[in-house]
Amino acid sequence: MFKIPKHQVAGHQAIDGNLGPLVDDSGRFYKPLQDDERGTTELAFYQSFSSKLPHHIRGFFPVFYGTQLVEASDGSGLHPHLVLQDITSNHLNPSILDVKIGSRTWYPEASEDYIQKVLEGDRLTTTVTLGFRISGLQIYESKESGYWKPARKEVKSFSADDVRLVLRKFVSLNLEPEPDCCFASTIYGGCSGILEQLLELKAWFEDQTVYHFHSCSLLLLFDKESVLNGRTVPFKVKLIDFAHTVEAKGVIDHNFLGGLCSFIKFVSEVLTDFKVPTIEARFN
Amino acid sequence: MFKIPKHQVAGHQAIDGNLGPLVDDSGRFYKPLQDDERGTTELAFYQSFSSKLPHHIRGFFPVFYGTQLVEASDGSGLHPHLVLQDITSNHLNPSILDVKIGSRTWYPEASEDYIQKVLEGDRLTTTVTLGFRISGLQIYESKESGYWKPARKEVKSFSADDVRLVLRKFVSLNLEPEPDCCFASTIYGGCSGILEQLLELKAWFEDQTVYHFHSCSLLLLFDKESVLNGRTVPFKVKLIDFAHTVEAKGVIDHNFLGGLCSFIKFVSEVLTDFKVPTIEARFN
Repeated sequence: MFKIPKHQVAGHQAIDGNLGPLVDDSGRFYKPLQDDERGTTELAFYQSFSSKLPHHIRGFFPVFYGTQLVEASDGSGLHPHLVLQDITSNHLNPSILDVKIGSRTWYPEASEDYIQKVLEGDRLTTTVTLGFRISGLQIYESKESGYWKPARKEVKSFSADDVRLVLRKFVSLNLEPEPDCCFASTIYGGCSGILEQLLELKAWFEDQTVYHFHSCSLLLLFDKESVLNGRTVPFKVKLIDFAHTVEAKGVIDHNFLGGLCSFIKFVSEVLTDFKVPTIEARFN
Repeated sequence: MFKIPKHQVAGHQAIDGNLGPLVDDSGRFYKPLQDDERGTTELAFYQSFSSKLPHHIRGFFPVFYGTQLVEASDGSGLHPHLVLQDITSNHLNPSILDVKIGSRTWYPEASEDYIQKVLEGDRLTTTVTLGFRISGLQIYESKESGYWKPARKEVKSFSADDVRLVLRKFVSLNLEPEPDCCFASTIYGGCSGILEQLLELKAWFEDQTVYHFHSCSLLLLFDKESVLNGRTVPFKVKLIDFAHTVEAKGVIDHNFLGGLCSFIKFVSEVLTDFKVPTIEARFN
């Protein structure tokens, strides 16, 4: 009944006998509850967020179904798991981008050791310079080639130009020799495209003083074949990972907001640079 | 001819034989050019900014008149100075707020020692938590009491609530026992008020990829008596201090933008909390 997720691009993974998340056939995602402060914090977030967020913002978060004792993927026996919506379910070949938002992934209340460790990671990646970093990705190429899924080490060493290239490849049918960006107008643009969704999120972050989302990721997901077949709801923007989400104490999450604005600028530049006809116009 | 500025609230000061800025009677401000990279950087900024910024943004910066050899305030002889607009000239009793914007005042290219030193200061002040810190201030109370100008040490230890209180006092006629905020609608609000000016700046920062302003300050200035007398242009928003302003390399200044948005939220909360009649309405 429980399986290892096919489309995980970042985070702990339930492979080689490690503890990691599981999925089932009903579209649920089982995330092992960490047995330290991170677990407590993430559980508290999921238990309270829906009452604290405005209706139009709730859709940016995975549905939370409660907790459940599940046989752990590392064979250590029953372990409490968060039961969440499996964002990739109903997607045959999802292209996925996991973008950790914020120019600082440490939080002021953390221990000195934690801050130094995390700060080092922030400085070695694009986190400090761009205000975000790509934590993982997979881009579906074709039935023959499968996915382009660079190794974690490669993703970690992405430069600003690599990020620009990834954002182009993400919305391309042909990735080589040059990404064609033929899905750019459909996926990034349009009145319900990713850019519009990001701008809706930004407007909320300019005002919300409920949460500070440290080390939280934006997950962008779409299915090329669904778009080509003209199916509806072909793409999603979701926020995930709340193990370091704390109370805002009356202050906006300027760290997340700044990073989000920087990411929005990168996405909008793909649209500006590639003013191509919509995918529908090209294939009709 | 050269005098020590009466209304300086932060930065190096030309008192007790130290090297610091000077002013003259013609409305010019002479800032000693630092003889290291900071001086080079700030001079390069002033020499190039007006050609790189859109017209409607240039007014946020002091006018630059070039450089001049001036007798240094520390008696060390002739020293090159930046010749700038004296923002406080024509103001009899200016209330001034110097707000250092950004949740990080260090820049990635700096030396390890510099980063550690500056990061420590950022963590000890509200820089990390609020995305900005008040670096200095003076608030004119009355002919009898003069200015409220807390000592640097006190300013450095401001908490979020202290910042809220200062932003209320800044637009109050009576500071004690409770700031009356009677200038709030006039100074913060209105179609050319400080909030509108900050929003104009924010819109530019959402898009501009020309400069990253590390450790740069917003100077807010107004003259209570001018407002009471109904004189025009009673308040200003200026950016100052560009010793660590670097090229943006195609990325928005997410650090400044995030901090600016946080500061905007604090200012707008004074307006929301104190929906008082405009000062004109109260005094007519």
